[in-house]
Amino acid sequence: MTLILNSMEIKECVQFNAELIPIIEDAFKSLSLGKTVMPPILRVDIEKYHGESDVKAAYIEGLDSFAVKVASGFFNNPKLGLPSSNGLMILLDSQTGVIKSVLLDKGYLTDVRTAIAGAIASKYLSNPESSTVAIIGTGIQARMQLEALTLVRDIKNVNVWSRDIKKTHAYIEDVNKNNKLNFTAFDNTNEVVNNADILITTTPSKKPLVDYSSLPKGIHITAMGSDAEEKNELEPDIIKNCDVYVPDSQAQTSILGELNHAIKNNLIKSDMIFNDLGKIIINPELGRKNNDDITVADLTGTGVQDTAIARYAYSIAINKNLGKKVE
Amino acid sequence: MTLILNSMEIKECVQFNAELIPIIEDAFKSLSLGKTVMPPILRVDIEKYHGESDVKAAYIEGLDSFAVKVASGFFNNPKLGLPSSNGLMILLDSQTGVIKSVLLDKGYLTDVRTAIAGAIASKYLSNPESSTVAIIGTGIQARMQLEALTLVRDIKNVNVWSRDIKKTHAYIEDVNKNNKLNFTAFDNTNEVVNNADILITTTPSKKPLVDYSSLPKGIHITAMGSDAEEKNELEPDIIKNCDVYVPDSQAQTSILGELNHAIKNNLIKSDMIFNDLGKIIINPELGRKNNDDITVADLTGTGVQDTAIARYAYSIAINKNLGKKVE
Repeated sequence: MTLILNSMEIKECVQFNAELIPIIEDAFKSLSLGKTVMPPILRVDIEKYHGESDVKAAYIEGLDSFAVKVASGFFNNPKLGLPSSNGLMILLDSQTGVIKSVLLDKGYLTDVRTAIAGAIASKYLSNPESSTVAIIGTGIQARMQLEALTLVRDIKNVNVWSRDIKKTHAYIEDVNKNNKLNFTAFDNTNEVVNNADILITTTPSKKPLVDYSSLPKGIHITAMGSDAEEKNELEPDIIKNCDVYVPDSQAQTSILGELNHAIKNNLIKSDMIFNDLGKIIINPELGRKNNDDITVADLTGTGVQDTAIARYAYSIAINKNLGKKVE
Repeated sequence: MTLILNSMEIKECVQFNAELIPIIEDAFKSLSLGKTVMPPILRVDIEKYHGESDVKAAYIEGLDSFAVKVASGFFNNPKLGLPSSNGLMILLDSQTGVIKSVLLDKGYLTDVRTAIAGAIASKYLSNPESSTVAIIGTGIQARMQLEALTLVRDIKNVNVWSRDIKKTHAYIEDVNKNNKLNFTAFDNTNEVVNNADILITTTPSKKPLVDYSSLPKGIHITAMGSDAEEKNELEPDIIKNCDVYVPDSQAQTSILGELNHAIKNNLIKSDMIFNDLGKIIINPELGRKNNDDITVADLTGTGVQDTAIARYAYSIAINKNLGKKVE
């Protein structure tokens, strides 16, 4: 029997809270320790419709189930009145391959586990007293990353930039309803980071949006927009010159993330090994050494996060007796 | 809304008949013409449980939907009273990425499209008057390949070999119920092919089971067991010495199929290009030239077959008003 969970049921099971942080941290730790089977991402590009579907999967040793996740981005959808993102997760029994559950989350669990990874990056890499964050982008991750960040840092000020100042103002108006924070709209990417303690970049940009010269001392950057060969949010010099560079999975960031562009520009040697996020979680001393250090977390999104959150959602659904069983 | 189809409903939609042949042929033609996006297979190996999950996907230009397919083989399952195979297919809208359907087929559609590909290979490559087939293996594909073959050739005699003569006899007893064919059990792989017009190999063997020297003139071989780096059913000399070698997808057979071993043994140069099955379907003259030719079809299973059969099953389910809609 396979348990079918719809998107409403999944949202009932997984709310956005600090309980998720150790769950996703454990996933990164397993990945770093090599206790996982995580194959390269499968990607179907449909250029005609400006769409892509990615499949990620990871088995974590010792766990009785693992996830296969399909996540799509079809960027003409908003013109059709549909969200760009879509997807589902499939939970398989690790011992038998039996399909335990299909989680029709429409991308919600991916959004959540992505934002939680951002919170984890800031928890371990940003200065503890960080109070000002710069957000680049105004999409769903621009919202969720901010919300996740407030779980780990006492944020007071939010600087926002996007390509379209109208969207920036709309974002602030919308997000401000739920937050008691000071929002400021910027029309310049260099100014938006000027006095920030943390920078979060959330766009699908194919050209760098932030220069190394604009960065204040001590800033932590979470770059989570780039998850494909051609995407690039940070000037590659940032990767070269920062004090601590942390990939979620270097196997992925070296071909899909910001690191990819630093390697292609001959700023970083392709055989250089960095401590990944899991290693920093296990031993935080490998991260920031000084208040003035510039740190970068390069997040491409990993299958182990999907396995962790799909298992979590499923276990709660079982407890709540949610979903439909199908033979 | 996503249409959930269970395994009984899918079997109601897709029966095993000649109607499927042109549907799968069209998929191979599109693949051969380059009118597809078919990324490399994603594979999760769980060695501890002797299990593997493969994900295949392919978009075919011009079609309004495409499939992502998860197929698992967990080879300790029979000891637990469960079938080794499992899986599902997901049908996505090509224009929006919306998930139109989840087909919980437990691997049935994969079994069908695999057997139909075998029938297509024999249709185009075997001698038309072929009447004797040798089957190696006694699993589900040993049954389905035989059934599919009878759609395209007037088979009278079936020679069977497997590692375990008891299983060979059990297979014959079981399959013979539904067929009016002359079955003969063999305890030797060279003898089983001795007077065969067609040989179908259906095992997960990691060592060659059939030698070139044992092959009679004019035989056609469909080797469909090997779909992973380490699997190998045919002596690599067969690939070198046969008159016509036809891969389903050379991108796959060169790393997963019989061709892989011929390349590794330096019998075939890795840059040699063969006509694939789609090309033979488009222009059958590229196949067998003479009655005495030895032909080989190397089938690893392709995402385009999955897209074709998932679309077919879905269209019939819609007509029959089957399945449950989930938000």
